[in-house]
Amino acid sequence: MNTKSCITGLVCPKCNKPYNHRELQHLCQCGSPLLAEYDPERAAKTVNPGIIKSRPATLWRYAELLPVLDSENIVSLGEGFTPLTPLPRIAGKYDLGNLYMKDEGIIPTGTFKARGAAVGVSKAKELGVRDVAMPTNGNAGAAWAVYAARAGISAHILMPEDAPLITRNESVAAGAQVHLVRGLISDCGKILARSIPANGWYDVSTLKEPYRIEGKKTMGYEIVEQLDWQVPDIIAYPTGGGVGIIGIYKALLEMRRLGWIGDKLPRLVAVQAEGCAPIVEAYRKKAGESEFFPHSQTIAFGINVPKALGDFLVLKAIYETEGCAVAVSENEITNAILELASLEGTFVCPEGAAAMAGLKKLRDAGWLKAEKTTVLLNTGAGIKYPDTLKFDLPYCPVDGTI
Amino acid sequence: MNTKSCITGLVCPKCNKPYNHRELQHLCQCGSPLLAEYDPERAAKTVNPGIIKSRPATLWRYAELLPVLDSENIVSLGEGFTPLTPLPRIAGKYDLGNLYMKDEGIIPTGTFKARGAAVGVSKAKELGVRDVAMPTNGNAGAAWAVYAARAGISAHILMPEDAPLITRNESVAAGAQVHLVRGLISDCGKILARSIPANGWYDVSTLKEPYRIEGKKTMGYEIVEQLDWQVPDIIAYPTGGGVGIIGIYKALLEMRRLGWIGDKLPRLVAVQAEGCAPIVEAYRKKAGESEFFPHSQTIAFGINVPKALGDFLVLKAIYETEGCAVAVSENEITNAILELASLEGTFVCPEGAAAMAGLKKLRDAGWLKAEKTTVLLNTGAGIKYPDTLKFDLPYCPVDGTI
Repeated sequence: MNTKSCITGLVCPKCNKPYNHRELQHLCQCGSPLLAEYDPERAAKTVNPGIIKSRPATLWRYAELLPVLDSENIVSLGEGFTPLTPLPRIAGKYDLGNLYMKDEGIIPTGTFKARGAAVGVSKAKELGVRDVAMPTNGNAGAAWAVYAARAGISAHILMPEDAPLITRNESVAAGAQVHLVRGLISDCGKILARSIPANGWYDVSTLKEPYRIEGKKTMGYEIVEQLDWQVPDIIAYPTGGGVGIIGIYKALLEMRRLGWIGDKLPRLVAVQAEGCAPIVEAYRKKAGESEFFPHSQTIAFGINVPKALGDFLVLKAIYETEGCAVAVSENEITNAILELASLEGTFVCPEGAAAMAGLKKLRDAGWLKAEKTTVLLNTGAGIKYPDTLKFDLPYCPVDGTI
Repeated sequence: MNTKSCITGLVCPKCNKPYNHRELQHLCQCGSPLLAEYDPERAAKTVNPGIIKSRPATLWRYAELLPVLDSENIVSLGEGFTPLTPLPRIAGKYDLGNLYMKDEGIIPTGTFKARGAAVGVSKAKELGVRDVAMPTNGNAGAAWAVYAARAGISAHILMPEDAPLITRNESVAAGAQVHLVRGLISDCGKILARSIPANGWYDVSTLKEPYRIEGKKTMGYEIVEQLDWQVPDIIAYPTGGGVGIIGIYKALLEMRRLGWIGDKLPRLVAVQAEGCAPIVEAYRKKAGESEFFPHSQTIAFGINVPKALGDFLVLKAIYETEGCAVAVSENEITNAILELASLEGTFVCPEGAAAMAGLKKLRDAGWLKAEKTTVLLNTGAGIKYPDTLKFDLPYCPVDGTI
């Protein structure tokens, strides 16, 4: 069945060269990632917020603004429409106005990587792909592995040996071919680049195929829909590769062209760890691109990306919305995990905690005002990170009392 | 704001003694758990499937059939309306007709325990409880800890020292007072029973308070709603304490009285591990209660319950729906995990895999017919069980290819 997708093609955001969405594409010849384009007039005629409200609570409710043409190709595990959870106690404690957390832990595989994988694998299936391949720090690999399994596509995955055990197990259980590497994700990427020509696999590394971002952008649609089609004042996003913030910005521009929101956009805030802050450094210099951040290190494994392929798009999203970039310490991250869990009952991943810590810092500095409506992205469930916290617990003897 | 809850009271399913829902209650004087009762005529006038469809996708959409009276007391992290995922490949492979999995991994804390905790904590808050206390094998404790934190209620938790590390960390991060015990959950229960009188805590052990089951029953409402208000032929449930199957049966009876479904009910199937199968043994003997299952052991930790307080209610649900009980081996559980992940992309907990294995067994035996619509319950995300699977993975040298 026709999804009524209004996709018209792909375009390079750097050199404007157009590409055909009916064929497999990777990067632009100029080296930039490609972005999908839609016909806003046709979309506005086909669908509107009222129609969307009546649809199932998955990201596929935005089908007209997604790239899959035939619903037979949709590979779904029920992903999307994650909760927008109010955080009233933390908002009160830090004078943060209306504070919400978009909780991407409540999604298949427990991280927002599921969105990119669901849409990316669906489109790969539609284009006849039989094998996908990628380097990963864990969560993206697990997400692509399970969606590929559901699609009947083979997955070939390279992981650093210190990637979380659970993401390894998820990938292998799903039937992916997983190789470990005594090195970094960048070493995995190099091995993959050498291996692909002989094997003919489809390279689905971050931003090297154009549809992962289409899945991620649905976070932007959902936030606005869940606020009853009002945009918040601020969206804070823990930024590694930056696909989410690029996607949210893309969604905001699309909604504006569709007439679903007004001219005003939220200010987009990229939060990074002090141990890996290339976007923050570029922002301080008002640069259009980031520089490689050497010897990067942070417990927020998912935002340990020393140089992102889409850095110029992240920075553009920040500058054009009058947002900012801010770095937080490891201690601030750990404290935010504990504060979110004990005050609000939300057990988040270190990356989500970093976003919270960033907001506290911006409020302290006065950049953030008390009366604002703010949304922070928690990109995954705390349960995927069993080793982040260490507690010494008391024992009670079997014949004792507490 | 009034939730329009149609609760009228509590009743003992064993001796029919009524209890007041406006006061704190535990077990009946006769030792049985209590069940909440609703006014079906008032409910049928207040709400119907069409109205429910327009509400947010959480379990609170069934507010009229839930015990909370004032919406101010609802403690929510966005739980419920989990996916009902089709399993077409496994259905094809084993000739299982229309096969669906209710995926309770996609919920706060990653297990269905969130439902019982959300409703149980909300009602405890409404009744003025300041401290809850419970013994746990891990997941229930984590769920009650986070919801209690959100409610501003203190939680006191006793866990065997071999409970999963991640559930410990969730509970402690949420601010619960956690004590470890070198023993079983039954030892934890005894310590708690000794400790409660001096402390005045509210005992929220399984079925000892009446509202956890009200949260769990929403799985039954959701399954029927997601099948467009048609009941499936079979619902298979991995059975430990059995609160879920008791709750689903209760929901089915309620929906029948509301006129939302016809007379026919699904046949309810309790699946247990061969290493802990008290309900299966009772079913074989056509007994109304189970006997303590000695030296119980299984990798499906959540269904390692040698004697459940609500066993008679589980057996009643099975007998009255012409269901059955079946036990599966550890190998069958592990194989089902791998099969669900590699064929369908669903990475489930061992308990969910047990339910799948039980269905295969019943189809082999001819008890289950090919043309049926069957729903199996996956009670939690596979990512909560990092140690269930062990894989030896190949390494690729940094200068190699794959």
